[in-house]
Amino acid sequence: MKITAEEIWSAVQAVREKAPIVHSITNYVVMNNTANALLAIGASPVMAHAEEEMEEMVGIASALVINIGTLSPAWVRAMFRAAEAARKRKIPIVLDPVGAGATSYRTRTARELIRAVPPEIIRGNGSEIMALVEEDAKTKGVDSSASSDAAAAIGGILHKQCGAVVCISGETDYTIGPAGVIKTRNGHLLMTRVTGLGCTASALCGAFAAVTTDPALAAAEAMAVIGIAGEIAFARSEGPGTLQLHLLDALYRLDADDIERMLRIETEA
Amino acid sequence: MKITAEEIWSAVQAVREKAPIVHSITNYVVMNNTANALLAIGASPVMAHAEEEMEEMVGIASALVINIGTLSPAWVRAMFRAAEAARKRKIPIVLDPVGAGATSYRTRTARELIRAVPPEIIRGNGSEIMALVEEDAKTKGVDSSASSDAAAAIGGILHKQCGAVVCISGETDYTIGPAGVIKTRNGHLLMTRVTGLGCTASALCGAFAAVTTDPALAAAEAMAVIGIAGEIAFARSEGPGTLQLHLLDALYRLDADDIERMLRIETEA
Amino acid sequence: MKITAEEIWSAVQAVREKAPIVHSITNYVVMNNTANALLAIGASPVMAHAEEEMEEMVGIASALVINIGTLSPAWVRAMFRAAEAARKRKIPIVLDPVGAGATSYRTRTARELIRAVPPEIIRGNGSEIMALVEEDAKTKGVDSSASSDAAAAIGGILHKQCGAVVCISGETDYTIGPAGVIKTRNGHLLMTRVTGLGCTASALCGAFAAVTTDPALAAAEAMAVIGIAGEIAFARSEGPGTLQLHLLDALYRLDADDIERMLRIETEA
Repeated sequence: MKITAEEIWSAVQAVREKAPIVHSITNYVVMNNTANALLAIGASPVMAHAEEEMEEMVGIASALVINIGTLSPAWVRAMFRAAEAARKRKIPIVLDPVGAGATSYRTRTARELIRAVPPEIIRGNGSEIMALVEEDAKTKGVDSSASSDAAAAIGGILHKQCGAVVCISGETDYTIGPAGVIKTRNGHLLMTRVTGLGCTASALCGAFAAVTTDPALAAAEAMAVIGIAGEIAFARSEGPGTLQLHLLDALYRLDADDIERMLRIETEA
Repeated sequence: MKITAEEIWSAVQAVREKAPIVHSITNYVVMNNTANALLAIGASPVMAHAEEEMEEMVGIASALVINIGTLSPAWVRAMFRAAEAARKRKIPIVLDPVGAGATSYRTRTARELIRAVPPEIIRGNGSEIMALVEEDAKTKGVDSSASSDAAAAIGGILHKQCGAVVCISGETDYTIGPAGVIKTRNGHLLMTRVTGLGCTASALCGAFAAVTTDPALAAAEAMAVIGIAGEIAFARSEGPGTLQLHLLDALYRLDADDIERMLRIETEA
Repeated sequence: MKITAEEIWSAVQAVREKAPIVHSITNYVVMNNTANALLAIGASPVMAHAEEEMEEMVGIASALVINIGTLSPAWVRAMFRAAEAARKRKIPIVLDPVGAGATSYRTRTARELIRAVPPEIIRGNGSEIMALVEEDAKTKGVDSSASSDAAAAIGGILHKQCGAVVCISGETDYTIGPAGVIKTRNGHLLMTRVTGLGCTASALCGAFAAVTTDPALAAAEAMAVIGIAGEIAFARSEGPGTLQLHLLDALYRLDADDIERMLRIETEA
């Protein structure tokens, strides 16, 4: 598997042409940015969380993104209903397990979602992904992490456990699927000083999964696109405030040349 | 009825002088932008949704804006209580039926609000307004829409059904009231790539309704002002991210000259 | 007590080095900005409001900020649980009584929180602080306010009643603690046209309280820092939209020279 700049550019064009509806059940902190990032790349965000309308809203969507960043029981119920409806309709589900590991409520909710309605893509940072790995496997994880690539190893275990493509973001982003590991190295450290850019990456995973059959490819497309846009934005920014705005502009203006020139990706079988 | 740039400028000045309190019960995605737009034009936003404080909060407000973008049962109850309190105090109510037609929960909630506590202004896009028209009338609507101005026709039907001024935003905004149709043609297509600018328009309808006796005039003022500010912002922007910020600056700096030079409005009896 | 630019700069450095986790239970309108301001100054924001995870989330935090800007019963219950957990762990609590005085629900909730789990710092505007003073004392407050500094007088009464450091923001910010009154005079009037900068100030009080033993000093540090950053941002802004973004950049880039050159602070025993 080799992923080219052309393939990623084709996916961007597909998002812009099809404007897929991405239904997001996400946290209060990032809703606005997430919606704006989806609009900037060309998708159509919908945000809704009432149980009363989950089936219908999922019914018009091309992807579902569930983000557990500001949980409460009513929202958890809606997440399950939406995920079940998405399963029935066979539209891709992306799970962002924000804060898994920080509290048992989050860890438990994320694990139960994964078990009951397995997502196509799970995207989180290293410690969140680690928290989702079942206990007995984690021991093996520690063994595996003796290798040079601890993150990829942990992601591989979670992938094997639940079948989802696992995407672990960091300086290098690891996307682990059935065909191996995709590493993307775009982005800039200042992006970690803007709240919710991980959540935005997950939302973009939803947009690309809506137009890409292979979820591992979709996740890698999303990570490459937000990373490249982040680098473009950084070059125009004076801090995290202006970075956030220029990132939206960069997503909107992204072209084939940017991707060709800046993409840093490699794949391992 | 002819609406001049002077009248619109007078309304802007009135908002800035009186700083009317606009109580918004709105969706999570746009709360921040909506509050900032109200502050930028000179109004005083208040956001509150607890049933426990609806009467008191409405009691200090000069207008109430209800936006159903991220509904849940507790919020719906608060919307009804706030609307009833606003009716008693005779302050104007603006309804933004976000997503009406997309799910029956939204369509039903918007229709019930309109029936129980008729708003002065309903502002939405064409499909949302269409969803609010009662079934038997919709057939007539289809007839009417054989005319060149389908949106105005549908808006006219809803206006006749419920008495509210109906404002349908799009490339041309149609404001339909008892005295006829006002068309405003300001704004820029890039504004559709920023989340919640429709919601912001509804919030501005509330601010202008607080200082303008005629709700049709108030809605047209709001649409002209956000459209002109949007064009000014577009000229300074590189994409939807910077557009959003420059729009707030433009609302804050808007002057008589801008309106005189840029206003595109026409009225039909 | 004399507070120097060096002390404030040391506190900024401490926040950047320790990146304290600030758990915020805040209102929907400002969550994004608050999180971004905390990230920009170097702290680590966490937003969570489910009763199910309050103890655990407080358990990893170095400060708790409670902001009552968009209350509802479930959130109030979470605020009490979080505050009790913070008390047990002896981490500082900051209370922002947004809208106290506007509705009895807010006034009552803020007062009950103060009585049940006294915060280290209460930060609000003059009318909010006034609303928290118990009735019989308010009469004395009116007496006291015959003096030239009504705000400081009211703050002094609340401080005596509940023991918390009371910080009243305005053109001059008054921080009233056991050692007297600290006046900071940084900031710019345009900051009042951006929603939630008061809430951001409260969040920064949390970040500085996490690295500063004396809560009065922590509050004064926060007010000086946001005020100086606001002035820097104003100089680069064309209105409230761009101000908001440049403020985040300014918090991120703030250095010893800025503070040395711009700080306007004075203390009274």
